[in-house]
Amino acid sequence: MSVKPIKDLSKLCVHTITTKSWSIEEAGERYEAAGVKGISVWRQYLEGRNIAQAGERLSNHGLEVVSLVRGGFFPSVSSTERKKALDDNRKAIEEAAALGAPMIVLVCGADPGQSLATSRAQIQAGIEEVLPFAMEHGVKLAIEPLHPMYADTRSAVNTMEQANDMAEAIASEYVGIAADVYHLWWDPHLEKEIERCGKKGNLLAFHICDWNSPTVDLLNDRGLMGEGCINIKEIRSWVEEAGFSGFNEVEIFSDRLWAMDQQEFLDKIVKSYYDC
Amino acid sequence: MSVKPIKDLSKLCVHTITTKSWSIEEAGERYEAAGVKGISVWRQYLEGRNIAQAGERLSNHGLEVVSLVRGGFFPSVSSTERKKALDDNRKAIEEAAALGAPMIVLVCGADPGQSLATSRAQIQAGIEEVLPFAMEHGVKLAIEPLHPMYADTRSAVNTMEQANDMAEAIASEYVGIAADVYHLWWDPHLEKEIERCGKKGNLLAFHICDWNSPTVDLLNDRGLMGEGCINIKEIRSWVEEAGFSGFNEVEIFSDRLWAMDQQEFLDKIVKSYYDC
Repeated sequence: MSVKPIKDLSKLCVHTITTKSWSIEEAGERYEAAGVKGISVWRQYLEGRNIAQAGERLSNHGLEVVSLVRGGFFPSVSSTERKKALDDNRKAIEEAAALGAPMIVLVCGADPGQSLATSRAQIQAGIEEVLPFAMEHGVKLAIEPLHPMYADTRSAVNTMEQANDMAEAIASEYVGIAADVYHLWWDPHLEKEIERCGKKGNLLAFHICDWNSPTVDLLNDRGLMGEGCINIKEIRSWVEEAGFSGFNEVEIFSDRLWAMDQQEFLDKIVKSYYDC
Repeated sequence: MSVKPIKDLSKLCVHTITTKSWSIEEAGERYEAAGVKGISVWRQYLEGRNIAQAGERLSNHGLEVVSLVRGGFFPSVSSTERKKALDDNRKAIEEAAALGAPMIVLVCGADPGQSLATSRAQIQAGIEEVLPFAMEHGVKLAIEPLHPMYADTRSAVNTMEQANDMAEAIASEYVGIAADVYHLWWDPHLEKEIERCGKKGNLLAFHICDWNSPTVDLLNDRGLMGEGCINIKEIRSWVEEAGFSGFNEVEIFSDRLWAMDQQEFLDKIVKSYYDC
């Protein structure tokens, strides 16, 4: 493993959900003050805002908008729901374009009422359906493989291999992959599949956090980098060797960390980031 | 998919942990009365018993002892702990032999303080170390691949493919695999890897339960068959096509179902079993 140490914050991006209680305006100010250089915006933080102005404000804080989070949730046993999902993804694409976000992270979805194979086919069909609209708006779509513990309702795409297969089948420069250490760290094929992803030009985003032992909640008990058992440095080395030079995006859902003073939490994020 | 419908209870096995509050004596009586034909015994139910007599009593209830649960937990950053684990596995082998259990299910273990690769190597070394002792006692060791959400502390073996790789590397007729739908249902390679497992003669056990949506606890929120989203019938068809003709073992950890009257729960198990 050869990995360059992190020497500055130029590639540090924080997801707005990470500092959950802050509005996008407060996040913008505080991220800038902390030296953060990128921001990934969850859609709920844009509610009631003029999105173009919100994007401009972030830019004035020296923040690059890395991604809009999240589109996806394509599968359903109901064709009405599948149509609604397509409409919502088109809306997300418009929001991303207005905000100045170059990509949308896709939490692809799954419906426990049908087989994973059917959900997977619906995901691919959904992406292909909205792809022309995404291209018109200059917005890329990043498939995020989710941990197998989310295969019932959140995503039927659960490994880097599956995401690679799907991105390669769609074969558009507007479709790629967001790799998140939380979802992927356990996979014995991870190094090989990250390399493949980079070679095909599909590696669009890299998300970091940690896996706590014990983990007490399936959704909201992610760890701050360094708290858990993920070798983030090793995975970052694979991602960088695969040609990725984008942001390291801190995406943490944690009831425990959200209950902290969020400025103190942000300071901890910055501090622990240097050891990633 | 071609699968024979379940017509009787001749292949129904229940794990003692499933009806958690019952002693092994009560479980024996009640399983017999319900028509259950197999029992897998968790070690804590043997505490304070003469194990050979406990086994005989189960036999008198017309119950075949399918497996002793559980051995494993080989990896540790501490060599003292690794040695303790070997001793405990030897003790489990003696217990299995005394009870009349033909195999031990291995929850292989993992230590979050070291890499998964290291834990995996320690698992294989641990199995190889106790294997001669297992052979002397006529007890097989069944590697159980665990869901990736348990990769931090419970098992660094998380897919059927990894379990196959390890069983084939060890290459002993006393080492095989216990396949549990709860851990494996999400895996796109499951059918292929079950087929491979059967072909190599490594498929020793088949465990059933269901995956609830939502799942509210990482450990103790398994569903009764039919409650969740796992296509048990399909996976059973793969297992049977792979040549497996052993018991279908019901292994459910559930705070919710344990809080029920356990006789009512057992009746539900029997009823839902016919639809598996």
